[in-house]
Amino acid sequence: MTETKKLTGIAASDGVGIAKSYLLIEPALAFPYNKKISDVVGEEKRLDQALAASKDDLEKIKAKAEKTLGKDEAEVFQAHITILADPELIAGIKGQIENSKINAESALKNVTDNYIATFEAMTDNAYMQERAADIRDIAKRVTSHLLGIDLPNPALIDEEVIVVAHDLTPSDTAQLDPEFVKGIVTDIGGRTAHASIMARSLEIPAVVGTQKAIEEIKNDVNVIVDGSTGQVLIEPNEDEEVVYARKVGEYFARKREQAQLRDEATESADGHHFDINANIGSPKDLDAVVANGAEGIGLFRTEFLFIDSDHLPTEDEQFAAYKAALQSMDGKPVTIRTMDIGGDKQLSYWKLPKEDNPFLGYRAIRISLKQDDIFRTQLRALLRASVYGNLWIMFPMIATLQEFRDAKKIYEEEKQNLTAKGVKFADNIKLGIMVEIPASAVLADKFAKEVDFFSIGTNDLIQYTMAADRGNDSVSYLYQPYNPAILRLVHNVIDAAHKEGKFVAMCGEMAGDPVAVPVLMGLGLDEFSMSASSVLPTRSLMKRLNVAEMQKLAKVALDKETNQEVIDLVKQSVN
Amino acid sequence: MTETKKLTGIAASDGVGIAKSYLLIEPALAFPYNKKISDVVGEEKRLDQALAASKDDLEKIKAKAEKTLGKDEAEVFQAHITILADPELIAGIKGQIENSKINAESALKNVTDNYIATFEAMTDNAYMQERAADIRDIAKRVTSHLLGIDLPNPALIDEEVIVVAHDLTPSDTAQLDPEFVKGIVTDIGGRTAHASIMARSLEIPAVVGTQKAIEEIKNDVNVIVDGSTGQVLIEPNEDEEVVYARKVGEYFARKREQAQLRDEATESADGHHFDINANIGSPKDLDAVVANGAEGIGLFRTEFLFIDSDHLPTEDEQFAAYKAALQSMDGKPVTIRTMDIGGDKQLSYWKLPKEDNPFLGYRAIRISLKQDDIFRTQLRALLRASVYGNLWIMFPMIATLQEFRDAKKIYEEEKQNLTAKGVKFADNIKLGIMVEIPASAVLADKFAKEVDFFSIGTNDLIQYTMAADRGNDSVSYLYQPYNPAILRLVHNVIDAAHKEGKFVAMCGEMAGDPVAVPVLMGLGLDEFSMSASSVLPTRSLMKRLNVAEMQKLAKVALDKETNQEVIDLVKQSVN
Repeated sequence: MTETKKLTGIAASDGVGIAKSYLLIEPALAFPYNKKISDVVGEEKRLDQALAASKDDLEKIKAKAEKTLGKDEAEVFQAHITILADPELIAGIKGQIENSKINAESALKNVTDNYIATFEAMTDNAYMQERAADIRDIAKRVTSHLLGIDLPNPALIDEEVIVVAHDLTPSDTAQLDPEFVKGIVTDIGGRTAHASIMARSLEIPAVVGTQKAIEEIKNDVNVIVDGSTGQVLIEPNEDEEVVYARKVGEYFARKREQAQLRDEATESADGHHFDINANIGSPKDLDAVVANGAEGIGLFRTEFLFIDSDHLPTEDEQFAAYKAALQSMDGKPVTIRTMDIGGDKQLSYWKLPKEDNPFLGYRAIRISLKQDDIFRTQLRALLRASVYGNLWIMFPMIATLQEFRDAKKIYEEEKQNLTAKGVKFADNIKLGIMVEIPASAVLADKFAKEVDFFSIGTNDLIQYTMAADRGNDSVSYLYQPYNPAILRLVHNVIDAAHKEGKFVAMCGEMAGDPVAVPVLMGLGLDEFSMSASSVLPTRSLMKRLNVAEMQKLAKVALDKETNQEVIDLVKQSVN
Repeated sequence: MTETKKLTGIAASDGVGIAKSYLLIEPALAFPYNKKISDVVGEEKRLDQALAASKDDLEKIKAKAEKTLGKDEAEVFQAHITILADPELIAGIKGQIENSKINAESALKNVTDNYIATFEAMTDNAYMQERAADIRDIAKRVTSHLLGIDLPNPALIDEEVIVVAHDLTPSDTAQLDPEFVKGIVTDIGGRTAHASIMARSLEIPAVVGTQKAIEEIKNDVNVIVDGSTGQVLIEPNEDEEVVYARKVGEYFARKREQAQLRDEATESADGHHFDINANIGSPKDLDAVVANGAEGIGLFRTEFLFIDSDHLPTEDEQFAAYKAALQSMDGKPVTIRTMDIGGDKQLSYWKLPKEDNPFLGYRAIRISLKQDDIFRTQLRALLRASVYGNLWIMFPMIATLQEFRDAKKIYEEEKQNLTAKGVKFADNIKLGIMVEIPASAVLADKFAKEVDFFSIGTNDLIQYTMAADRGNDSVSYLYQPYNPAILRLVHNVIDAAHKEGKFVAMCGEMAGDPVAVPVLMGLGLDEFSMSASSVLPTRSLMKRLNVAEMQKLAKVALDKETNQEVIDLVKQSVN
């Protein structure tokens, strides 16, 4: 028996998937440009057929998207169908075929290029810019049908597959239907890439950063993806299939077991209580929060209200979103972070200056303090919503006490403005900061005197403390959550807060990471906030652990020298 | 008497300058493109005159550059003169005037654009790429003479002026002659911009980042630049001129006084010894180091050997540079940092991948460990040079102990290779690291057990700790050297080193900063390394201070809450 070929990557989303591979590759759509034709009628018939086939595709995609993503998100595909049937567009293409006697591919290209150029020239009109992207998409689809080349479309997958891709965009990932997509394997990306986060939220097992999945995995062969270990088996033998099928079984058994923990509190084996909360990006995510039994929302990333819009969200639009979150949590704490725009999060309708190092640039609270109109609007929306639940507000990217004081001053001014107008807001709103910049972690004792709570944002804290961009493959080995330097900063923040009787949450990826959780329990973290899908596995883990033992473990971990030594320590001590 | 208009900026280089303003603005060189002409002979005569005037310019620039920068650096202007006289080039331009009957400006543009495009297309040939830049420069100069518009040229300045510019490139600054340029005022930039560093090294008073110098200062009016306070006075009244003239006198008196400290050791008023060393970029800087009485070289930035070359410097070329530094320091310590390429320092002949956040990317030791051929060549050159003096080697951008161990392993291997070949090297070489990433500052106790010494690189340490790119104007207010978070990290590094009996230097801008120096003395820093021009003022300051008092001051500073509070504290305590 020949040995099974294996790939090793980064374990990005838990679980095991076994299915046929589905290679998601953008095919080359080459054709002879402006080739002369003689059979005009035949050429126009080819065009009509390609248009009809494209319409079929889009209707299937739309139906699928309505199911997985909801009606609103699927609307874009209806727009594509409408454009495809546009008489002016079709007349333009046919006109070129008839008058210039050229092939349909070229006629299509000439006409759509013209539209695209016109729309793209309207640089200050985000709406028309998006229409240009739509037309480019449509032209690609029709061309593929003219050439008889299948365009892979993740939304069209209707049998069980393992999706194999060089990389997945967030929108590719959003179109995946967990009913059919049993696993994901990519060449690039890390655990904290948007696609990985989304895979975890869709509960699809994923291994990313394998470097050579596209090269090594043929289409339509058996593949096993082990999202817990980062292993990918290509054309496994029968023994391996049996072993992994058992793992799948165990995985689902564990899931069922965990589901029973949904309504239980999170308590360690020796009776210490912790909060497990969930992170959300919009009210759409609220169902999963409730379904997974989170004890609150530890991070509402409000920037997605800004990103998923074609204008700055109004006070009323924001108010509606915050109110929905507060109401659905029914008195449980809801921590809402003011917008963290900038860095890798840009808005289509409001351009920030281009920067050499956007992660070290003008973003988050730095924008809010300088261009405070947007900030004030958001604070008013939050204050108005506060009467519907238990609101905690926090500011992102706070580096200095002066910034916190300036932000708080604006917040107090908006409170006074609302009071003057007779608008009501809750009187128990908590005001805190994200600790995600080394300076505020080091100076936590001073901050603790002035804030109501901390939430440690480990994704950024790690990247600044290690001086390594987590999205950069060349330095991803330096993204080390268990590096003792990181643990010491976390320890310092927790200790400083507790000395002032303040509460400490963590809302980075680390809070739901089974290697980090035992150490964080030992360090005395109060709240663990994570993607909804991690809530139950984490609660299950924490119930098995003993705080007194974890305190000893944490003490040893703080005195280790490297990331790897801490991993080894936890794996030896916790099983 | 009307009030004098004042600008406030960042005090970037000490001293006071009083002179007429000289606005260094790139003028618009617009002309009617391909305008038809009838007088061919007249047009060709205009061209000849412009060529001759350009040649005159370049000869003056060349002579000036030889004086300020040396013969080698001035060679580029000889190359420009040679190109300007090239018969093929001139024939090409005149051919266009004769055949197409167009104006000389357009003929010049058409011909030179063609050359530039051809050269620039040779993307893998750095030499030809530079020739394209030369031709672009020359075309600009000739066009300016055709249009009768003066091109400002900093090297041509031959009367006392204050240079006013939006920004100064390093090459602009290098052309300034301190004999005539009595001050610099810019709109943008910070204390650590290359232009500021160079201004300090040329000892030209400078105020940068005034935002509106170009807008507010007319050409050829009296201006006073106070590089100690950051004040700029536009058309000062007589009283002010008297006051500032006295300041200039005092400044030079202080300089003379400091010069007497050249051969003295650096000792505090209560008898504690400190080392004041100088930072250099190449052996060219050695004269200034000796002239200013530095006690050693605290930082030799070897990447400039790589940047100022058109190929990777060979082992022998590097050996010669290191040997020169060691010999000229005559047994005093010479700390050489292995190359810190990447980030904002790129090589023309060896392209690194484009990164979203280069400061958080693939740079310095990260490159050395992955592409270790270059690193091994450098280590061999260093080892061979070590017999000529007192060599300390340090690695930049160390984030983890594993990186230091990996780098040291390669170093030991190269030692063995040389030993096997019978090549001698010193047996007292010290091996240390730059502490410029928060992770290594936090974990300094562990590093201190394995390294011979630390050198704290504050420029990077501050930018990572505050998560703010020091070159980005939008967030420059966060570049806070005195933020208590920074002081605490520095304190942690010094304490950890001393507990293990190890030596701690600092080689960032902060080491020569009069607000920081008293606190750093109190924290027990062993060595202060700075630009050569700061050595004597710092020695003078330190001789006046009392370590016992500075220890108390440092303790209070560590417990402050903001950058500003520390500034106020030092200004109150030290005068």
